[in-house]
Amino acid sequence: MTTDELRALVRDVPDFPTEGIVFRDLMPLIGDAEAFHATIDHLAAWARPRRPDVILGAEARGFIFGGALAYELECGFVPARKPGKLPWEKVRATYELEYGSDSLEIHADALRAGARVIVLDDVLATGGTAHAKVELVERLGGIVVGALFVVELTFLAGRNRLDGTDVHALIAY
Amino acid sequence: MTTDELRALVRDVPDFPTEGIVFRDLMPLIGDAEAFHATIDHLAAWARPRRPDVILGAEARGFIFGGALAYELECGFVPARKPGKLPWEKVRATYELEYGSDSLEIHADALRAGARVIVLDDVLATGGTAHAKVELVERLGGIVVGALFVVELTFLAGRNRLDGTDVHALIAY
Repeated sequence: MTTDELRALVRDVPDFPTEGIVFRDLMPLIGDAEAFHATIDHLAAWARPRRPDVILGAEARGFIFGGALAYELECGFVPARKPGKLPWEKVRATYELEYGSDSLEIHADALRAGARVIVLDDVLATGGTAHAKVELVERLGGIVVGALFVVELTFLAGRNRLDGTDVHALIAY
Repeated sequence: MTTDELRALVRDVPDFPTEGIVFRDLMPLIGDAEAFHATIDHLAAWARPRRPDVILGAEARGFIFGGALAYELECGFVPARKPGKLPWEKVRATYELEYGSDSLEIHADALRAGARVIVLDDVLATGGTAHAKVELVERLGGIVVGALFVVELTFLAGRNRLDGTDVHALIAY
């Protein structure tokens, strides 16, 4: 399946999670065996030549794509989680939201120094969570070899937050 | 890698999330490329002959294994989420906790009637969330062909909540 065929499976949900937002619902794509497989194959085709050791994804939807991509590329998977979820020693990065801020954590022993890491998420919006993931990788001495997304909301200009990082998305709005 | 070798990568964290609980931390296993791949292959070996159409996993750690397993078996993946996270029409199942209750939701159009479904999670504890997932599948007319876990805490007897379901775990405590 082409990325245009995948795009046709993304469902637009108006006014979710708040009024005025059009939510790009990837569930019909994830639930379709052929489409989900093709999505991972497209992600893997971009990621493979960058020779990652680790895929790092944020909870929760990033875990679905990230687990599958890590399996296909024979990488480890590192989950970036909201505070309080991980049980071991952690490092934390904080990012700004429209109102207030939020944080992501990874385990302090999640990466060896020099590990090649692709940070992945379902959607690139303002780039806040992606930037936080890059920061976490670099604080542990890892090398970000790519930032990969299924969907990019180009009007939010999240790429500008990821200056210097190789960014790719399968489907742009 | 054998399941005994995988077990050696599970980290015991005492007093997490609350005093007196030994948390079985799967992050070292997930973060190890070879171990993560072997884990998915063990899960797939059990799941494949049951010919699932869909893998259904609960947030958040269930998404990591579930996405990879769905990819490997060329199934769709259906995420079961906490209330308020899914944007479309939903069905909900509620389950008891030690104090109070919690709920899981899936989209009402997530399964076609007759779909063969494996419900998957990282850990089988009391069986509450697994039982809720079985209930969600059956309410949409799906057929649960297996309940699959990486770790089973046998002293919590979660299997008893899944009477009539084919249950398997890679690593039992």
